[in-house]
This record gives sequence, structure tokens and C-alpha cells, in this order.
Amino acid sequence: MEFLQQSFSVKFDYKVYFTTHLFDRANDTLSSFLKERMEEGTIQKVLFVLDQGVDEAHPGLKQGIQDYFETVDNIHLILETLVVPGGEEAKNDESLLYQVIDAVNAHGIDRHSYLVAIGGGAVLDMVGYAAAISHRGVRHIRIPTTVLSQNDSGVGVKNGVNFYRKKNFLGTFAPPVAVFNDYHFLTTLSDLDWRSGMSEAVKVALIKDASFFDWIEHNATMLAARDMGAMKYLVKRCAALHLDHIAGKDPFETGSSRPLDFGHWSAHKLEALADFSIRHGEAVAIGIALDTVYSMLTKRLSEADARRILVVLQNLGFPLQHPLLKFEEGNSPLLDGLSEFREHLGGKLTIMLLIAIGTGEEVHEMNEKLIRESSEWLERYAHEQTIRL
Amino acid sequence: MEFLQQSFSVKFDYKVYFTTHLFDRANDTLSSFLKERMEEGTIQKVLFVLDQGVDEAHPGLKQGIQDYFETVDNIHLILETLVVPGGEEAKNDESLLYQVIDAVNAHGIDRHSYLVAIGGGAVLDMVGYAAAISHRGVRHIRIPTTVLSQNDSGVGVKNGVNFYRKKNFLGTFAPPVAVFNDYHFLTTLSDLDWRSGMSEAVKVALIKDASFFDWIEHNATMLAARDMGAMKYLVKRCAALHLDHIAGKDPFETGSSRPLDFGHWSAHKLEALADFSIRHGEAVAIGIALDTVYSMLTKRLSEADARRILVVLQNLGFPLQHPLLKFEEGNSPLLDGLSEFREHLGGKLTIMLLIAIGTGEEVHEMNEKLIRESSEWLERYAHEQTIRL
Ligand SMILES: NC(=O)c1ccc[n+]([C@@H]2O[C@H](COP(=O)([O-])OP(=O)(O)OC[C@H]3O[C@@H](n4cnc5c(N)ncnc54)[C@H](O)[C@@H]3O)[C@@H](O)[C@H]2O)c1
Ligand SMILES: NC(=O)c1ccc[n+]([C@@H]2O[C@H](COP(=O)([O-])OP(=O)(O)OC[C@H]3O[C@@H](n4cnc5c(N)ncnc54)[C@H](O)[C@@H]3O)[C@@H](O)[C@H]2O)c1
Ligand SMILES: [Zn+2]
Ligand SMILES: [Zn+2]
Repeated sequence: MEFLQQSFSVKFDYKVYFTTHLFDRANDTLSSFLKERMEEGTIQKVLFVLDQGVDEAHPGLKQGIQDYFETVDNIHLILETLVVPGGEEAKNDESLLYQVIDAVNAHGIDRHSYLVAIGGGAVLDMVGYAAAISHRGVRHIRIPTTVLSQNDSGVGVKNGVNFYRKKNFLGTFAPPVAVFNDYHFLTTLSDLDWRSGMSEAVKVALIKDASFFDWIEHNATMLAARDMGAMKYLVKRCAALHLDHIAGKDPFETGSSRPLDFGHWSAHKLEALADFSIRHGEAVAIGIALDTVYSMLTKRLSEADARRILVVLQNLGFPLQHPLLKFEEGNSPLLDGLSEFREHLGGKLTIMLLIAIGTGEEVHEMNEKLIRESSEWLERYAHEQTIRL
Repeated sequence: MEFLQQSFSVKFDYKVYFTTHLFDRANDTLSSFLKERMEEGTIQKVLFVLDQGVDEAHPGLKQGIQDYFETVDNIHLILETLVVPGGEEAKNDESLLYQVIDAVNAHGIDRHSYLVAIGGGAVLDMVGYAAAISHRGVRHIRIPTTVLSQNDSGVGVKNGVNFYRKKNFLGTFAPPVAVFNDYHFLTTLSDLDWRSGMSEAVKVALIKDASFFDWIEHNATMLAARDMGAMKYLVKRCAALHLDHIAGKDPFETGSSRPLDFGHWSAHKLEALADFSIRHGEAVAIGIALDTVYSMLTKRLSEADARRILVVLQNLGFPLQHPLLKFEEGNSPLLDGLSEFREHLGGKLTIMLLIAIGTGEEVHEMNEKLIRESSEWLERYAHEQTIRL
């Protein structure tokens, strides 16, 4: 057989900065970054896309950006900041994606210029996708403004939009050139969004880092009470674990192993059933609870550890079950969710369970009867709690 | 400044196979490839998208594919082969892109399944783009059917479609999992398409490989007369040089250096002026001629070498100039092309010229007066030739 072998590696490098008040003129985190990457003779443009929720919560932001860039030489700020609706809408409405691409075209953003997204995970995913496909990739900077996006989605390498009402049907793997986590944005989050992002921290602690779990356990009530010091620690530690994971074996996920999807198979189904009206983080908390109990009933995880996990989720403020996933007459959309997930993986299931706090184990089968028992166990658990209160 | 550093490499590996009659049941090139990549317990699907020009020239092909796959176990061939118009239309008409994405969705092509494109560079670029963005990348196999796509575009890592009437405005860098060059397809090409792809071979020889240029020089008339043995050698050597180049410094083109764009700045302008009615390869031949003469007039290249190059292009059958680029009253769209190219690069020009056959040199300025003189020199040259004939 006659062939030529092609083989090369592409190196990706970026920093995730942690700061407060990124656009304060005294804060040179962003300006230093841009200066370092200036290119003799080249005019680099910067176009901002802003999550409407952030715009409303931070009415001085747009002006603040303009003021900030007055101090940055040799960078051409596009004055017209594009504001797009935040939340899943940003990923569902194709016309918003094309608004961003239109702006890239209209303002002549090229492969040496920057497309910056400020917002929650949804806006970042959509703008990141626009950046990845425009001119085969313009430089993309992410400024995540939610707990979830600062500790998870915004620091990673994936982007995407929904299509045919399917989550992330279109998307790419495309690392940003930098991520700027500005804690100040978190102060204006709804309680729901403040909380939602923390389930991913619990998840990553459970499969990778027992001492981080201990820390969350100790600080759960402070975190729930919106203590910023505790939140900063959580965000940074969780982001670090995510970055490590991505840099590990399979950054662009060519294999079937998805350890970070612990608790996610049922979460995906729940999100779809709720037509994405519930937050990803809430759905994940419910998925974690289910797979924790399943790990316990299959004798992988001790009951004591399982109960510790459930208590932490509750102390953070998460419900552990959702009516949409309930078993009725022996059946539940959960079971469909499992088949769909298997099908999605091409017929072979790979699911992460727990054998200890901090240690996961991949399995290729889940028992439907035990899924039901897990669900019922959780129901009794919730019931007992209500009585105790 | 507080930050986390992310840094990882992604390895890309693929083979470019050379064969004849890929779908002959006795030919196991493709089936062996698929067998090697089978995954226990996973059903892998294969969806074909076919260039209409190829379909018409090879009416038995669709049936041949079905017969071939009867011999391949554990692979689920999607029986409905999607046929799309070939040529630039494939990249201009957005609805064709969505037809492919629709089929990916309808047939449940997942990240373990294959989306195969058979066709010229345009169809490969469009289907490759669909593959790259569906589910953040399904496995993509290319079966290039033109000289250009077998020796250049189809073996590389780029894909794309046109948008806002701009060439490749949307696209990604996404290596295929394999490329199968079947020489038999070349037998049905029009003379125009047979010839067009050879200008890229001249180009890559001129900047990288003097002995390959010598070979082309010796074989130019045979190549022009459609000698298949000579063409096989040209395709393979040119593909090898392209693969080497990509594997070299900057596979995903993050820098500004584009050695393979020798002769391309004016070619791009010409293609746009002609509304893509002329083939890329023809435009490139004209661009090579211009930059060769420019290299000579700026004393980089000897007149003898310049004349050798022009003769080779002519012997291959290429015109060396195009009326659309002519200077009139001191002006030519060429000069606009140069400014647009500079702007496209963010203000700083990087252009490859020749200092010898086989050796290029990058410059950051081109002199407009000398561009005009080059154009006029070529006109006189063509005129002398006509007189001599
Ligand atoms: N790319 C990935 O790897 C990845 C990973 C996990 C999740 N995600 C995606 O992330 C999305 C969820 O992101 P999210 O949880 O950040 O929520 P979100 O983006 O849906 O935002 C939730 C709401 O908060 C608002 N908002 C954002 N920042 C605010 C602020 N600072 N103050 C006030 N309001 C603010 C938004 O306008 C929106 O209404 C989902 O689409 C999910 O698929 C992506
Ligand atoms: N991705 C890259 O790196 C890259 C590099 C260079 C060029 N390109 C792109 O490649 C495209 C040009 O590709 P091309 O030169 O292969 O031409 P093409 O794809 O435009 O095809 C030309 C014509 O030939 C027909 N055809 C294809 N194979 C045939 C066969 N075997 N027999 C008969 N007819 C056949 C097609 O139907 C079409 O009508 C351009 O869009 C260009 O931008 C891409
Ligand atoms: Zn998640
Ligand atoms: Zn070319």
C-alpha cells in the first residue's frame, strides 16, 4: 500500500488571569497582555461582544472599556460594542451568531485582531464559535462573568451553539488566546447563577481531588451565603483542575473517555426535558446526586461518603431531584436518557462513577433497576430530611 | 499578576494513500483503514457526499461504493449518497452546507462515524467544514478527484466556505483522518482542470525544491499531453512537499509567513475580479509569472531562470497574463489587490519572491512602479512569442 504519513503537533498556550475590576485604568492585566503581543507595523483591532445581562447589571461597563482603551496605544478599539441576549438564547438563536460574524466582517477583524466576549458560558460559547470559524480563527479573548464560566466553561477549549434544538450540535475545539476572570462580575449574579456554577466544582473535586472536596465541605455554608473570599478560592482551584485535565491526555476529546462528564448523562436529559429552562449547574447537581447514590448501591462508594456528598450539595443550596426525572410505573425519562447517551457514544457507554471521594471509575454498563432504586433512595432521603426539619 | 498557565500539544496524524480504483472490491486500501480503526462494541457509520461533476463522469460510482461496503463488516454505510454541485458553487451556496449538516443529523453521524467527501477542492472544502463543525468534529475522510485537490488542497488541513462573497470567510483548520488519492478520477477531468492543478506543483517546486522543478521542466510537454505516469509522479511529489511544509513550523498558520502563497496575492485579486469564473490554478500560474518577473526586475532572480520558469508555465499550457489585470493609464486592479492583501494581513505585507529556482525570500514591501514594469515586461514577452510563432 502506497502512502505518505503526515504527523505533527500543534502547541496551544494561554493564560487564565484572575483579577478584580479588569477595566480600571490602574489595572494593567489586559493592557500588558495586548502590549506583549503587539506586532511591529500591524494594527490590531479589538471588537467586544457583551452579554446583555452583564450590560444591564454593569451599566458603566461599555464606557469603562472605552476609557480603558484610551490608555492603550497601537490598538484600535472598535467603538461599537455588540450587545447580545445572555443565557441559552444566545446559543439557540442563529441570527445572533450571524450578528457577530457580520460585525467581524464589517469591522475587518482579521487573524491578528481580537474578538472579545464578556458574559456567561452561553455568550462565550457562541462568540467563541464565531471567532473560531471567522477567517479560520481570529484571536479570541474570554472574559467570563458567571461562576460556571469562570471555573469551567470559560477556561476550556470548547465552544458551540445549539442547532436542531440539540445542545452544542455545531461547535469546535478552539483555545482562546487568554481568559480574564474578573471576580467583580460575580457580585451581580442572581443567587441561582451564583450557586449553579458550584456543582462543577463539586464534580471535579469528587473525581480528582479529595482535599478540595473537604475544603468545599467546610466552606459550603459560607459559599451559599455569597462569601467572596471563599468563592475566589473555589473558582481558582476549580479552574486549575479543569486546565490540568484538559492539558492531560486528550484535549480535543478524540477518545470516548469523558471523566469530567461525571453526573452529566442524566443532567443532559434533564436540561433537554426542561427545554433548557433550568441551569446546567442545577441539572449537574441532580446528576451528581443520582450517580453518587448509584455508586453507593453498587457498593463502589461507602454510604458515609455518599451522605457527605449529598449534604454538601444541599448546603450549597441545590435540590437533589427533579420531578421531570421521576419514575412512574417503573419508567422514567432517565432510562431514555441513558439509551440516548449510549447512542450518542456510538453504542458503547462510558460513564464515570465514584469509588471514593476524589476517585472515579469508568463503567460501560448501568443497571436500569439500580437506577430506579437510586432514584427512589434519593426520594426517601429527601422525605426523611423534610420530616427532620 | 495572578494567573494560571495552560499549555498543551495536540498531535495530528493521518496518511495520504495513493491508489487506483479505490472502490474495486479487490482493493483493500480503504477497508483496511476502516478495520484498523474499528472500536469494539461501537457501530461506526459512513456517510458519503459526492461532487456532481464526479457523479456524472463516473456513473457507476455510487453503486460501486455500495458493492464495496458489502465486503466491509461492522461498518454501517448510509445508503443515501448526497450529491452536491461541484466547483465554487459548493462553497458559495450556504444551503448546500446545511444539506450536509442536515444529513449528519438525520443519519446520526457521531464523533466516531465518518463523513466522506469525494470531489474537487471546492466540495472537499465545504464538506470538510461541515465535518469540522458538526459535533465539534466528526471523522472526515477526503477522496480528492482533481489534480489540485490531490496534490494540494485535499491533503492539507484547511477547509472553508465563501461568505459575503469573500473566499473562505468561514472555515477551520481541521486535519482529515485520512486522504485517499485515486488517480483514476483524473482521467475524466476537463483539460482545464487537468492543467490547473499543476501550477501549485510549479509553485512549490520554485520555493522548495529545484530538482522537482527540473523534473517538471523535462516532463512539461508530457504532462500537458495528459500522460498519466508523469501526472502520478507530479501529484505524489507535490503532495509530499505540501505535507512536509504543513508539518513544519506553523501548521495552523498563526504567524504571518505564508511561503506557499507565492504568486497568490495577485491570483486572489484575479479570482475575485473574475467572480471565480477562472480556476484557482490558472490564476496562480498568472501570479507566478508576475512575481517571477518582479523577482527578476528587482535583481533577485537571474533572467535565465525567470525565462525558464515562464517557458515551463507555457509548456504546461498556461496563459501568463489576464486582461483583467492589465495596466491602463498607469493603473491596474493589481495595485488594489496589493493594498487589500496588505490590509488583510493587518497592515504588514509579507510576500514571497524568488532568489533562485527552489529558493524563496520573504519581503515586506513591493514597489508599485516595478509591479507595473513587470506586467509590461510580460506583455512584451508574450508579444515576442506570438511574433516568433
Ligand atoms: N464550553 C464548555 O466547555 C462548556 C462547559 C459547561 C457549560 N457550558 C455552557 O455554558 C452555558 C451556561 O453558562 P452559565 O452557567 O455561565 O450561564 P448563562 O451564560 O446561561 O448565563 C445565565 C444568565 O446570567 C446572566 N449573567 C451573566 N453574567 C452575569 C453577571 N455578572 N451579572 C448578572 N447577570 C449575569 C446572563 O445574561 C444570563 O441571563 C450553557 O450553554 C452550557 O452549555 C459550556
Ligand atoms: N483547503 C485548501 O487548503 C485549499 C487550497 C487550494 C485551493 N482550495 C480550494 O479548492 C477549490 C478548487 O478546487 P479544484 O481545483 O479541485 O476545482 P473544483 O473543486 O472547483 O472542481 C472543478 C470542476 O471539476 C469537477 N470535477 C471534480 N472532479 C472531477 C473528475 N474526477 N472528473 C470530472 N470532473 C470533475 C467539479 O464538479 C467541478 O465542476 C477552490 O475553492 C479553492 O479555494 C483549497
Ligand atoms: Zn458541565
Ligand atoms: Zn493555491
